[in-house]
Amino acid sequence: MYYLIKFSSSFLIVFVLLVSCKQETVKENKSVDVIKTEITKKDPLPSWNDTSPKKEIMAFVNTAIDKNHPNFVPIKDRIATFDNDGNLWSEQPAYFQLFFAMDRVKAMAKDHPEWKNKQPFKAVLEDDMKTLAKGGEEALIKLVMATHSGNTTVEFEQDVKDWIHTAKHPTKNVTYDKLVYQPMLELLQYLRANDFKTFVVSGGGVDFMRAFVTKIYGIPEEQILGSRIKTAYEYNDGKPVIKRLPAIEFIDDKVGKPENIQKIIGKKPVFSSGNSDGDLAMMQWTASNKHKSFMLYVHHTDADREWAYDKNSHIGRLDKGLIQAKKDGWTVIDMKKDWKIIHPFELN
Amino acid sequence: MYYLIKFSSSFLIVFVLLVSCKQETVKENKSVDVIKTEITKKDPLPSWNDTSPKKEIMAFVNTAIDKNHPNFVPIKDRIATFDNDGNLWSEQPAYFQLFFAMDRVKAMAKDHPEWKNKQPFKAVLEDDMKTLAKGGEEALIKLVMATHSGNTTVEFEQDVKDWIHTAKHPTKNVTYDKLVYQPMLELLQYLRANDFKTFVVSGGGVDFMRAFVTKIYGIPEEQILGSRIKTAYEYNDGKPVIKRLPAIEFIDDKVGKPENIQKIIGKKPVFSSGNSDGDLAMMQWTASNKHKSFMLYVHHTDADREWAYDKNSHIGRLDKGLIQAKKDGWTVIDMKKDWKIIHPFELN
Repeated sequence: MYYLIKFSSSFLIVFVLLVSCKQETVKENKSVDVIKTEITKKDPLPSWNDTSPKKEIMAFVNTAIDKNHPNFVPIKDRIATFDNDGNLWSEQPAYFQLFFAMDRVKAMAKDHPEWKNKQPFKAVLEDDMKTLAKGGEEALIKLVMATHSGNTTVEFEQDVKDWIHTAKHPTKNVTYDKLVYQPMLELLQYLRANDFKTFVVSGGGVDFMRAFVTKIYGIPEEQILGSRIKTAYEYNDGKPVIKRLPAIEFIDDKVGKPENIQKIIGKKPVFSSGNSDGDLAMMQWTASNKHKSFMLYVHHTDADREWAYDKNSHIGRLDKGLIQAKKDGWTVIDMKKDWKIIHPFELN
Repeated sequence: MYYLIKFSSSFLIVFVLLVSCKQETVKENKSVDVIKTEITKKDPLPSWNDTSPKKEIMAFVNTAIDKNHPNFVPIKDRIATFDNDGNLWSEQPAYFQLFFAMDRVKAMAKDHPEWKNKQPFKAVLEDDMKTLAKGGEEALIKLVMATHSGNTTVEFEQDVKDWIHTAKHPTKNVTYDKLVYQPMLELLQYLRANDFKTFVVSGGGVDFMRAFVTKIYGIPEEQILGSRIKTAYEYNDGKPVIKRLPAIEFIDDKVGKPENIQKIIGKKPVFSSGNSDGDLAMMQWTASNKHKSFMLYVHHTDADREWAYDKNSHIGRLDKGLIQAKKDGWTVIDMKKDWKIIHPFELN
């Protein structure tokens, strides 16, 4: 399983590098004609159209790294924080971590015969999404607790690794890791090439993410922040383990994001990117940096290639964030207009 | 104040680099004859005597970076975690953060007339250490809550910065930042030069440490882990603040250390260093790394140059840790025997 992961993530990186040698023509799409994915010094963001967001990002980076510019940012302060769901990869029709929890319920069901008659497990086992949705947040927490705890950190990591490269998205029919955004992979790489330190700051579970995103995003475990459950260290006769307990310790969403950033990173980001109102406090915190900072919202506008949703969505709701972005001149990506390609598999 | 800090920390680094040009003879000491502090490729640890700990550290690093050696450690896994109090700087006759809290009580007393007759504040204002000690942990928590909360993260940082370069240690009569261990500064630098990522993992308050240790140790804010109090984000009409609340959120000591390492760093250290039983769980966790790992205990044995204490000390108690270190072959620094110099000011 490990080698599969290695192959898959290397694939993305190697591919991006290889295509710089030739021009790629990929399958046509309403908003895509011919796509070049050449990451060069001249164009570090080849999957972005030459519209405002790309220009604004590059203008910001060029001044941030220019020692003689008033907007120069010292390297130690080049902290860039990215939401994950809906910002670095897709999040529809439900957070992918929920699909993981549901698949785990199915896998664990043989040891839990009582689940056949117990909600929300019954709904999951019967693929009854309607009943599951009715259970609301309480049902979700029950599912997460049952599937994300009771084992050690090592065992949980293996569960996620096994899942991410076998389970398939219900409508896109590809493994979930294929649903990352190619333009964001390029943006992460571009920022790092300019000495920004890139972090994920997500409402998703931190250990769920760490099991696979480090290789896909090129971001090490220690730069992934997320929601956490409680844990307990046990010496275990010289073979110590950390057990995952069935209790939520911290939800890394809304005001939790700047709070967690302060606790773990210890300084304000100078670049933040998100796609929902859950990211607004992080954006505001970033906007208050003493250095000139950059706030980037992803607006899901492409129902053909991805999904189109904002203020009326039950997932990744974007309402107040969009209003403040317009008011304060933050950059908003119109996915349909601004991204040449969305998912890396469009390049195949 | 900012420039003072900058000067002071640069001083340490610049000094270490400059002295490589010439041989330094410093004041004589029972255990020191002539001291060379040349950090060279040949000797990256010039303040260490050529005794076992230095040899063992260098042997470990040399195999960890050797791709052809079975003990090779990939760069991404070269995580080194260091306790702070008693391990990177001194901790006697009380944790320096307690002296900070006491100085803050005195500075804040004019706004708190009630403290004159209220313990433990009364004891602090009267320099009555005996009564203060009697108050035990409860008294300490009251002091920390009163002095470390009720302000914003920015204000607190400034309080610490103002203090660290003006307050003096009660017996050594130097500012507290001068009481860092020169051999450990060299060790941090040596590990980083070999692509280890160095972290502080301390029972001390994370924001207290971040206000000054980043420059002294060369470790950025995001690699400092410590105890935390609760916080609350407030939008504050577009000038957001994070307020420090009077409630402890997490104590980064004993089993809290491996738990916090897993939550924040997300992988096992391959090198750990501490000086007390409070570090034992971190050491055990490190010892269980799949890679060959290194566990380093500092044993305070030098009553002349520093302090001598272990299993009977009320601070930095080292008892079980020493027993396990001997049993499992971990490296133990005998401060008196193994360190040529202890504090950088001995070089003056």
